[in-house]
Order: sequence, then structure tokens, then C-alpha cells
Amino acid sequence: MSDDVSSVAAPEGGGVGLVQFEDRFFDEPFDFELGGRVPSFSVRFETYGRLDSCRSNAVLVCHALSGDHHVAGRYASDDRKAGWWDSMVGPGRPLDTDRFFVIGMNCLGGCRGTTGPGSTNPSTGNIYGVDFPQLTMRDMVRAQHRLVRSLGIERLHAVIGGSMGGMQGLLWAVDFPDAVGRVVALACAARQNAQAVAFNEVGRCAILHDPEWHGGRYARGRGPRAGLAVARMLAHVTYKSQERLEGRFGRARVGVAGAGLFDAEFEVERYLRHQGHSFVERFDANSYLYITRALDRFDLSGTAPLEVAFAPMSARALVVGFSSDWLYPPAQNREIVKAMLAAGKNAVYDEVDMNAGHDSFLLPSVELHRSIREFLEG
Amino acid sequence: MSDDVSSVAAPEGGGVGLVQFEDRFFDEPFDFELGGRVPSFSVRFETYGRLDSCRSNAVLVCHALSGDHHVAGRYASDDRKAGWWDSMVGPGRPLDTDRFFVIGMNCLGGCRGTTGPGSTNPSTGNIYGVDFPQLTMRDMVRAQHRLVRSLGIERLHAVIGGSMGGMQGLLWAVDFPDAVGRVVALACAARQNAQAVAFNEVGRCAILHDPEWHGGRYARGRGPRAGLAVARMLAHVTYKSQERLEGRFGRARVGVAGAGLFDAEFEVERYLRHQGHSFVERFDANSYLYITRALDRFDLSGTAPLEVAFAPMSARALVVGFSSDWLYPPAQNREIVKAMLAAGKNAVYDEVDMNAGHDSFLLPSVELHRSIREFLEG
Repeated sequence: MSDDVSSVAAPEGGGVGLVQFEDRFFDEPFDFELGGRVPSFSVRFETYGRLDSCRSNAVLVCHALSGDHHVAGRYASDDRKAGWWDSMVGPGRPLDTDRFFVIGMNCLGGCRGTTGPGSTNPSTGNIYGVDFPQLTMRDMVRAQHRLVRSLGIERLHAVIGGSMGGMQGLLWAVDFPDAVGRVVALACAARQNAQAVAFNEVGRCAILHDPEWHGGRYARGRGPRAGLAVARMLAHVTYKSQERLEGRFGRARVGVAGAGLFDAEFEVERYLRHQGHSFVERFDANSYLYITRALDRFDLSGTAPLEVAFAPMSARALVVGFSSDWLYPPAQNREIVKAMLAAGKNAVYDEVDMNAGHDSFLLPSVELHRSIREFLEG
Repeated sequence: MSDDVSSVAAPEGGGVGLVQFEDRFFDEPFDFELGGRVPSFSVRFETYGRLDSCRSNAVLVCHALSGDHHVAGRYASDDRKAGWWDSMVGPGRPLDTDRFFVIGMNCLGGCRGTTGPGSTNPSTGNIYGVDFPQLTMRDMVRAQHRLVRSLGIERLHAVIGGSMGGMQGLLWAVDFPDAVGRVVALACAARQNAQAVAFNEVGRCAILHDPEWHGGRYARGRGPRAGLAVARMLAHVTYKSQERLEGRFGRARVGVAGAGLFDAEFEVERYLRHQGHSFVERFDANSYLYITRALDRFDLSGTAPLEVAFAPMSARALVVGFSSDWLYPPAQNREIVKAMLAAGKNAVYDEVDMNAGHDSFLLPSVELHRSIREFLEG
């Protein structure tokens, strides 16, 4: 997720103001797709707007790898940052809280309040760590579905998300066809490409090789901080376009006298190091391992043609690609819509010309906002 | 450097057969561009073909980050691999050893025989480590120039190289204009872009954060092996195109029963881990830090327009870009030639359509070989 959203002009309409998260405890087991079970689980989520009397106006927002339930608003008026998609949610914004009841939820396996490898295993009283069951994107979506039903919602007006969140939107459409009317999938692919697996694997190896990982059995608040920081630094580069990095940093140097031989010499290095350091304060390394693995396993088609996967889908779909996204390039976004159309579904592709790379989907854009607004309200 | 060259058909002509490297000791100081000095230094190099009587047929080959002096041929008939650019060098090959005297040299700061951070400091008897002077690309080129002169060569017929080696070719043209007649620069840029700095910085941080780095003062044969492997894995991904990785690996899985939770699950992961492991056997982590830093500092233009940098150049130049190179994309290759032409120099740009990414320059290609042959012989 980008941290330079602040460079973009304020979006239309007003924000959602002060918000609070909620925790919902499910005192019932959750069985994982690849085997394994947790006896109970907890979900952290936020909502914005009001659920209408026929419970038909809910929009689920699915976050990307490093995101969470805090989609919009601030917890306190002096919070430096709003939620990660604040520009998208609020009165008059594309996810218009005068019309929609918007839900953000931290994913299963995450570390921001929902049960994951960093949570306490109620059976042992210890942290799950690597005893947490293997995780897939389908597991995450099934946990979202449990939350949505617990809110009394049988059918979502829409599911929307970018990157990993977009993949989850696609899974909603095929796994819960009766429970979703519209899907908006941004900057994602129908299957993880080999290069994306490769980058994730480099990040995982940085974590696994950090002696502080201790085979995944580190104490809360400890862990492979250096390895996780390196993983995040790398991922961060893949979320930006070369043009964007060049435009923002170019060859600007850090003006520090007496810096050590291998201290940050260029501004882009200082920026990346900051991204790494701040990430370890808010993310659990085992969650990073589990979630990236789930991403790498994501493959809607398997050995069959992709249109077969979309056969159950009844939702209308909007798939958006971004011209400068080289992690999931537009051709991979388009492929989704081609397969949906081949399966006889109602789907449209929109390509937005932005130079921010994969992270473009997080930034306010008149074109993107119009496209989403029209799709959700049409 | 690619390890999948074997997938390409054998090139034209014959190879150079069995070869030996030589070491040349310079019992004289070397003063570094940014300050610092070594009292003496040693250079490892190889030559192929014969120097003609007027010493006018020498071609210097400059290697990339992970390359070395062993450009062509084998040390023993049962060597599994030939030199890294074997397809380019030999009788009838583009660097035709029936015509040219070809020189490969391990760069200053390297770890394959030429003096670098892993060498013994004669003043102390200890390994230099981080006491080695800060290094620039100009330092490497000046060391090459010392070797060339020591071979009795006043003027090279040509300097040729890809990636870092291409940058060195450009520096020869501007720093030693009387000493080189032709320059062939492949898959390189006139200055390191911010994304390339960013990737190098992630790799450096993986090394610096490995506790076995010990502030750069590790014993010979020890060191930050895990961190260096991660750095190499990352760099390796940046040398390949997404298309190439997808075509070679796709979503093929490693068929290992009972594999651990975070063992390699996909073939692309196993391949990358192998690249990392094998790299640490042949490369010194401090050399990796010094050389990537030198790369990141490379900026021919500085604050002036690039054509100003090329004012001293008298060599003819051939600059080659590769369509799928996203580390130094064709636009950055073309920029070099535009600036040379703006400076009134004799320069030509050739773009080769290959899908192997940055590593394309290492692979035999009829088009590339023809282009180089014609340029060197024209």
C-alpha cells in the first residue's frame, strides 16, 4: 500500500469522520480449505453508513496484502492518516455512505485484529505461529462471508477490492454467486504469475533466514524484524512504477554528513528503509508468510480454461487495470473479463491511465472514481 | 547473469577451447576517485586470440555485476559450463579470435581474483573488508586501463559490455578517448535509475541485516550467506522478464512429499533458491555491497545535459537495447545515442526483440551477433 497518497489532491465529497472498529467473536470452528481447523475465531471490522431496512445496500471492501479493516475515516481527530482508501468512501464519494453500508474487514490470517498466526490458540494458550492451518484466498473469503451473514446480510450489493482484494472479489462471484450482485476487481489477476511468486519468495526467504524467526515460534512483539523489513522494502518497489520512483526521487541524495559507508545515500533508499521499519511495527512476519503463500496459490483456472471458473457467477463485474501496473499488467486484468464474457457473463473492463504502478488503485483519480460510481449505482 | 543459456541453440563458429586465467600484480598504488588508496593491487584476466604486431586488434570485454574475467572457453574439458559469454567469442564468432585479441578482466573491487574488499590488505595482513576504499565505476575503468597498458596496448580496437559492462564502455569513451576506437554498450543506461537503486538497496539491506555480516568484518569463507543469497535471488528476478519466467515456470509445482510449510512449493521458488545458494559459493558479500554502490552512483550526466558528458568521445558507438529489458528499458538505451548524436558523435542504436529481459544480452541471437560483428569489423 502506498504511503504517498498525500501528494494527490483531496477527493470529492466529505469523509466519514471519526470511526471505530468492532471485534466479532465466532465461537464456532473454522475449517480450512487445505485441512486444519481453528476452534473459534475473531474478526475485526469497521462499517460506514447505514444498513437499509431491506439489508440490500452493503458493500464489502477487501484489502490488499498489507491493508486492513481501517478503510476510511480516523480514530481520533489528530490521527495523522485516515484509512487506506479514505478517498473512496464517504458522503458523495464513490462508495457513497449516504447510499451504501460499507464494510471493511481484516482478513483471516491477518494480524490487525482478525485471527491469524499471531493470535493465541485457545487450545494451548500459546501463539499459533506456524501451527496455524495453511491458508488460501478461499479461506479468507469464507471468513468474510461468515461476518457478512452475522451482520444479517444475505446478499451484498457489491464486493470491491484491489490487488489481493480484487482476487477476493472474483472468488465471491464464483463461490457465493447468490450473495453478491456486483464485483469490482482492481489491479489483480485470475492467477498469480511466476514473477509475482518469485518476488514473494524472495521476501519470504528474507524472513525465513532471519535467525529471529526461530522456525516461526517467536514471542509476541519479537520476531524477524530485519527480514520482514527487507520483504516489505522489496514488495514496496514492485508496487511502484519506475517512472513514479524516478519522478519522485530521481538521483536525489540524502544530505547527511558523516554517514556510514552503507547508510542510505539516496533519498529513494531512505524512503524504502522507512517503509521497512514502519511496516514491522504494524505487521506480523508469520502473517506475511501465510498471506503471501495464499496469494501465490491463487489460481482461479487451474488446468481448465478460465471461463469454466466463472460459470457459477451471476454478479455483474467491473475489472479495472492500470496502465503502469507491472506486477499484474493490464493484459492480465483484461484476461479476466475476456473469460467472463466467454462464459456469457456481464462484465466490463476499464483501463485507467495512471503512472503510479500497481498502487495506482489506491490513489484518487477522477476517471477511476467515475467508473466505480457509475458501476455501483447503475 | 543468466543460468539458462543452455536452452539456446549453439552459436556459429567454434569456441576458444581450453583457457587459463592470468594474474598481474601492480606494485604501485591505486588512488580511488572518492579518496582512499591501496598500496598495490592485483588483476585477474584472460585473453583469447593473438595480439597483432601493431597491437591494434585488442577488444576489452567488461563484465556485469556478477560476472568475471572468464568470458569464454573452459578450464578443463569436463567443465560443465563455459565462460559467461562463450557464444560471443571464438573463431567465426562476433568477437572473432581469428581477428581480435580479446581480453576479459575481473573488475576492481570484485572477488574473482582482482583486488577487492575480500583481499588481504598488505599494510595490515588482514582482509580489507569495509576498510577497502569507496569504489566507483570510474575506478574500475581506470584499473582496466592500467591492465591494458601493461599489455603494451595504447589503443583498444573496441570495448564491449552489457549492463554494468556497458556503462564501463561508455566511461572508456569519455575518460580515455584516445585509447578506444569503438564502444559497444548493451542493456545499460547513462545513469542508474531510482528503481534500480531501490532494488540494489533491498539487496544490500538483506546483507547488512544478516548478523553474519559483522559490520563487514567477517572471516574469509564466512560472512552473510543468507543475506547475500536473498540479494542474489532478488537481482535474478530483475534480470528476467515476466514473460520469460511465466513461460519457463508458470505455476509448475515442486513435487516433494512432506515438504515443510515454507519450503519451495513452486518450481520458480526452487530455481531462485538454487540461484541464491550457488551465488554465495562464488561471490563475496562485501564485493556485492561495493559494486552495487558503484553502480548506483553511476551517473554520466550529473546536473548537465547528457550530451555534455560525451563531448570528449572520439570512438564510434553502438548501443543496443532489448525489448523486454525492464531494468534498463530501451528508452534509457536510446537516450544514450540521442545524447551522443546531439554531441555530434558517431553513434547508432539497435533494438533487439528478445523476451529474456535484461539478461537477453547474454544469449546468442542472430540479430545481435550480426549487429556486433558488423560494427566491430566495419
